[in-house]
Amino acid sequence: MAKRGAYAKGVVKREEILEAALEIVGRRGYRNASVREIADAVGLSPAGLLHYFGTKEQLFVEILRARDRRDTASDDELEFFDAFLAVVRHNPEVPGLVQLYTQLQAEAADPGHPARAYFLDRTEEVHAAARTAIAAGQREGRIRADLDPEWIIRAGHALADGLQNAWMLDPTIDMAADVEQFFALLKP
Amino acid sequence: MAKRGAYAKGVVKREEILEAALEIVGRRGYRNASVREIADAVGLSPAGLLHYFGTKEQLFVEILRARDRRDTASDDELEFFDAFLAVVRHNPEVPGLVQLYTQLQAEAADPGHPARAYFLDRTEEVHAAARTAIAAGQREGRIRADLDPEWIIRAGHALADGLQNAWMLDPTIDMAADVEQFFALLKP
Repeated sequence: MAKRGAYAKGVVKREEILEAALEIVGRRGYRNASVREIADAVGLSPAGLLHYFGTKEQLFVEILRARDRRDTASDDELEFFDAFLAVVRHNPEVPGLVQLYTQLQAEAADPGHPARAYFLDRTEEVHAAARTAIAAGQREGRIRADLDPEWIIRAGHALADGLQNAWMLDPTIDMAADVEQFFALLKP
Repeated sequence: MAKRGAYAKGVVKREEILEAALEIVGRRGYRNASVREIADAVGLSPAGLLHYFGTKEQLFVEILRARDRRDTASDDELEFFDAFLAVVRHNPEVPGLVQLYTQLQAEAADPGHPARAYFLDRTEEVHAAARTAIAAGQREGRIRADLDPEWIIRAGHALADGLQNAWMLDPTIDMAADVEQFFALLKP
């Protein structure tokens, strides 16, 4: 019982850390947000904080996972394409998370990096949801039936990722408007 | 005269270094290719090599510039869209350069990073060439006249960049085929 209590407390603390980290990284950026700053915000030492995650890299991967959980929860009632757009539309408000995502995505090219599993899992999940939505859209005549659904998925995903890179160099880019224009091209 | 001779020799050595670096990074990857390995290949010490570039970061930015010069030279007689596709088609043969590009692109989000100027310059150059090609395509009826040329440019660029990220996680992706399918969607 004591152990289960300690475990439950650990889960709660972990969530508290990720919540603070999401806010700090979103606002301050990946490179400017130190483990110490996140630790300070939740009353831990940096070593005490890393105890919950293992390494700094794993902490940052968990921040991305926590962000996805939050995005999914807030878009729960939206249709896939609208939920996708809602995330893209929200991104300019959390530049540090966009920076963290693109940075870890580049690092995930390294087979030994802890971000690799995250990006592979995320791709699988997002693509599965997209597959269902595109099949429905093609059946109901909202999406051109002659387009390969797998191409739509890869291209939509790549477009959104690539626009993040462009937006970090030129914040006047309206990522959501550009993704919407792509969706418009898919209509019959 | 002696000074000009030394300068010319410096330029030649710099080109020799970049040529060796392109080969080594393309084959071994950005993270596996050390300054020492590149230095060994051209008979210099690591410090002697960095003397030509300043810092390791600047060396890696110059490797990307050298690659662009090589790509531009080899695609000199191709029309813009074909040249663009030729670069995308060549990329799977140089995985280390794809990795270097995506890594430095993520780091270029940092205003103080030497890669920032490179990516801004490159975007401006590529977009200017694309603008001319798209205007001709729309005039001649090969590209839908109702599409905003600036959107086509941003979306095509973002798609190619995003596909690189996806390809690093899943090398079965045919980046060139996916870009070609995008071009096909632009036809009237």
